[in-house]
Amino acid sequence: VSGADHVHPAALRIGLDVGGTKTDAIAVDPAGEIVARVRRATGWGPDGVVDSITAAVEELSARLGADGVGFGSIGIGVPGQVEPDGARVAHAVNLGIDSLDLAAAVNARLPGAVRIENDVKAAAAGAYALHGATGSMAYLNLGTGIAAGIVVDGVVWRGSRGAAGEVGHLSVDPAGPRCRCGQRGCIEALAGGAAIAERWGRTSALPVRDVFDAADAGDPAAVALRHGLAQGVAAAVRVLVLTLDVDEVVLGGGLVGLGARLTEVVDAELRAGGGASPFLRSLRLHDRVSPLPAGSPAAALGAALVGAADPTGVLAHG
Amino acid sequence: VSGADHVHPAALRIGLDVGGTKTDAIAVDPAGEIVARVRRATGWGPDGVVDSITAAVEELSARLGADGVGFGSIGIGVPGQVEPDGARVAHAVNLGIDSLDLAAAVNARLPGAVRIENDVKAAAAGAYALHGATGSMAYLNLGTGIAAGIVVDGVVWRGSRGAAGEVGHLSVDPAGPRCRCGQRGCIEALAGGAAIAERWGRTSALPVRDVFDAADAGDPAAVALRHGLAQGVAAAVRVLVLTLDVDEVVLGGGLVGLGARLTEVVDAELRAGGGASPFLRSLRLHDRVSPLPAGSPAAALGAALVGAADPTGVLAHG
Repeated sequence: VSGADHVHPAALRIGLDVGGTKTDAIAVDPAGEIVARVRRATGWGPDGVVDSITAAVEELSARLGADGVGFGSIGIGVPGQVEPDGARVAHAVNLGIDSLDLAAAVNARLPGAVRIENDVKAAAAGAYALHGATGSMAYLNLGTGIAAGIVVDGVVWRGSRGAAGEVGHLSVDPAGPRCRCGQRGCIEALAGGAAIAERWGRTSALPVRDVFDAADAGDPAAVALRHGLAQGVAAAVRVLVLTLDVDEVVLGGGLVGLGARLTEVVDAELRAGGGASPFLRSLRLHDRVSPLPAGSPAAALGAALVGAADPTGVLAHG
Repeated sequence: VSGADHVHPAALRIGLDVGGTKTDAIAVDPAGEIVARVRRATGWGPDGVVDSITAAVEELSARLGADGVGFGSIGIGVPGQVEPDGARVAHAVNLGIDSLDLAAAVNARLPGAVRIENDVKAAAAGAYALHGATGSMAYLNLGTGIAAGIVVDGVVWRGSRGAAGEVGHLSVDPAGPRCRCGQRGCIEALAGGAAIAERWGRTSALPVRDVFDAADAGDPAAVALRHGLAQGVAAAVRVLVLTLDVDEVVLGGGLVGLGARLTEVVDAELRAGGGASPFLRSLRLHDRVSPLPAGSPAAALGAALVGAADPTGVLAHG
């Protein structure tokens, strides 16, 4: 975080990752360097969310001595269904937003070009840039739910109706647990944080971590849940590689906070699949999967890139 | 099939679909019209295959009065693993070819630029052109095995290591039948013609048709096999749409010869999935699936397009 003094605010791109609890906001200079970062709690509902966004951008302005001067662009990643116009968001249940022209609402409070993107797609663009990736990459978000963002030659793949990357609702076991979507054995029913918490059934701030702790202590129900999580993540990796043959699959989302405890069980499951199948083994899936580091600004960075209508990731990152 | 008299052979693109039993060869004029088509038996092994290709192209030459004059390009679709260089094919077990520089072998006998492509990828390019498609399309080949070809903006998606479209080896049921790849419950183990024939266990020239006949007559084993086929195809459609959100999924391959008997059970299975899940229902999967017509020249046409290094499908088709 440096060099802000030398860059005019109009040359800075702002990116925000608006999560259900926290909003992560960054300013990115023309060289792709993150020159400022602030985090704050996210408010509830349309007004609360717009207040949080406005306050975060104003805090960045103050830190960068840019008060009263507009930034070059503002990109905002939100957990919801975002229209192709990059303005309207729907079904953002974790933010208390049913439907809102978020770009217009933010523009009523802040100057500059504003563009909205789905948070997983934004994180995918950011992970691609942070990895210095070329070719194709899938970002697999392991959070409350499971979804992927696909980036090809630096561009986020949107699909025809916005369903691209919805791998969480592929069933991989007709006898598996019921998913909130209505099917049985969905990848999300096995590996989604909310589904695991519900099946674990004990109140906890970090239910998946509790499951891992209990599994380490030998609790059979927790061992089964942890195994299901690994199976679900491995299935998602196989879907992404056997459909698109992406060069790499980057794991992100809240569950990645479990660190090696998560990646080890996923790695073991991918190797076990390779043990059963020479074809799968030849794909070396375990070598193609890596997690984002904890606290990675991928989602906010991706929002900044998308916000500047420059999701190509051809920028330098130090 | 007309207009050949008016086009110089050097302006014609030749496309061949070399199958395990038959070779389908066409000549395509600059407007994208098929001006000649010949079909003949495919020989066995490297020499037999090259002989068949040479004979088919020479028959096209004779029909078009083009003897002794080279065609503009020759594209060849083969059921095997094709290197990105478009020359070498490996593991073409149905042709008796272990590994061969097929482009060089053909060029030793015929003049002109020769390019090889995997038959499913070629058929995908051809189906895209025949459908006058725009945007994205997946071609799902239902034959001895199950594989898909993905076309985006007219270009066949290759993936990083040639595994793109290998959806047949995704497991959708850990308790399902053993696949020849080593896993259980692969889509191909449920829906591949060879897997169904093996489980049916009776000698027949058209085993899957026999299974459908027996299912119609109430045979419980045949009903189960037919249901598994529908489940496997529906799972492949869901994988393609929930990963890539392609605009449409076109079904091709030998099993499509079953016509409405096949598409009706697939349609029913896709509607049943939508009945269980409002999310799936919203994707209207059954509306996005359509079969190639019987005898479609998709694979040979795609080979011609790929052979001319013009897989964009931006040509007119009458």
